[in-house]
Amino acid sequence: MASFDAELVALELGFVGIAAPISETVSQQHGAAHAGLTFALGDSAAGYAALTTIEGEADVMTAEMKINLLRPAIGDRLVAEGRVIKPGRRLIVVQAEVFAETHDSRKQIALLQGTMVPN
Amino acid sequence: MASFDAELVALELGFVGIAAPISETVSQQHGAAHAGLTFALGDSAAGYAALTTIEGEADVMTAEMKINLLRPAIGDRLVAEGRVIKPGRRLIVVQAEVFAETHDSRKQIALLQGTMVPN
Amino acid sequence: MASFDAELVALELGFVGIAAPISETVSQQHGAAHAGLTFALGDSAAGYAALTTIEGEADVMTAEMKINLLRPAIGDRLVAEGRVIKPGRRLIVVQAEVFAETHDSRKQIALLQGTMVPN
Amino acid sequence: MASFDAELVALELGFVGIAAPISETVSQQHGAAHAGLTFALGDSAAGYAALTTIEGEADVMTAEMKINLLRPAIGDRLVAEGRVIKPGRRLIVVQAEVFAETHDSRKQIALLQGTMVPN
Repeated sequence: MASFDAELVALELGFVGIAAPISETVSQQHGAAHAGLTFALGDSAAGYAALTTIEGEADVMTAEMKINLLRPAIGDRLVAEGRVIKPGRRLIVVQAEVFAETHDSRKQIALLQGTMVPN
Repeated sequence: MASFDAELVALELGFVGIAAPISETVSQQHGAAHAGLTFALGDSAAGYAALTTIEGEADVMTAEMKINLLRPAIGDRLVAEGRVIKPGRRLIVVQAEVFAETHDSRKQIALLQGTMVPN
Repeated sequence: MASFDAELVALELGFVGIAAPISETVSQQHGAAHAGLTFALGDSAAGYAALTTIEGEADVMTAEMKINLLRPAIGDRLVAEGRVIKPGRRLIVVQAEVFAETHDSRKQIALLQGTMVPN
Repeated sequence: MASFDAELVALELGFVGIAAPISETVSQQHGAAHAGLTFALGDSAAGYAALTTIEGEADVMTAEMKINLLRPAIGDRLVAEGRVIKPGRRLIVVQAEVFAETHDSRKQIALLQGTMVPN
């Protein structure tokens, strides 16, 4: 989270939203580079969402994650919304949507689907 | 590449290897955080591999990418090897393996499979 | 569709639902076998949903598709709901949910995410 | 296996090959329909490969699987080769390649990557 300057913007059972500014550094990157940043934010939101569904001091790890990039990450900030599709003791199936926002627009730029495992 | 302190270690038609040190910052991260870093390196290697198969000044973008995390990213450096499975004018199917290396060991920590599109 | 004895149950712009009975043949299969059948139904619903967003006599092909299996396919019939997440001339990003239904219950058994290409 | 008229053509620890004829029924299908059949064969090969790495009478289930379709399934028979990338007690990461063969050619038509869980 710290490396993206990210903050928590929503927290419910099975749902977490995090936001991070789109810095000049990020916005100047081209092509495939965007995928890594968008992935990291979506994957983090999905992981935190999974954490809300498990008890005790457990951590979760990403077992596998798939991302479809829909649009370029243009805007003021990115918001990633992670949700749990299917909780479980061994496998937690998660989804995340990532949006690029300006003060008056919000466009989905990515969709992620994957599996977290309690650790 | 710059943000990971990464360097090119192999370059052939349809194959690119890049390496990045596992910094203290990275090695201290837990859980889902690793996925983002490993993804970014594997995705970059796959994107560069795709670039070697297209002509002119085109760039490539990640359309979609899937990662399976196999082991924790423990070691001195990460090496990502990207290769083109199927070149194409519209879609380039790629794969990447990511390894964690020490001076005398090399373990695969991730496998990626996805699609690049010329841009 | 014919090979699953499937029927169309919903049709809107960007959304298609198809249903197929869970035959004895299917319900007697174990383990990994279920994945193929559930995949085929979800992939078909997603493909038909993509078709509703393109003009003319074009066909669509699955470029890539990912499925997470959530629960066993137990019930009277399977219903697959495909939707278009992002239309496009070159790439259409789609999603599908597959449910197992009895006369009084409906449980999601799979989630798919992938890319269709007009052909 | 029976539903594809499939036969075992290779069996080693962590590696299984299965083959199935490309029937008229299959070859006459268009578009997205191919994905289901190719997926089922690749997923089965990957599942059997996973089975070779676990002890006792356990079964395996597909937790998630991703397929990239590379070329149309044209030829006399399909051969799917599944292999274990990372064995494990809880998660088995697998890969499969599917080829379309004639008497004198062999072309890769799909690549799959996914996770099996012992059951």
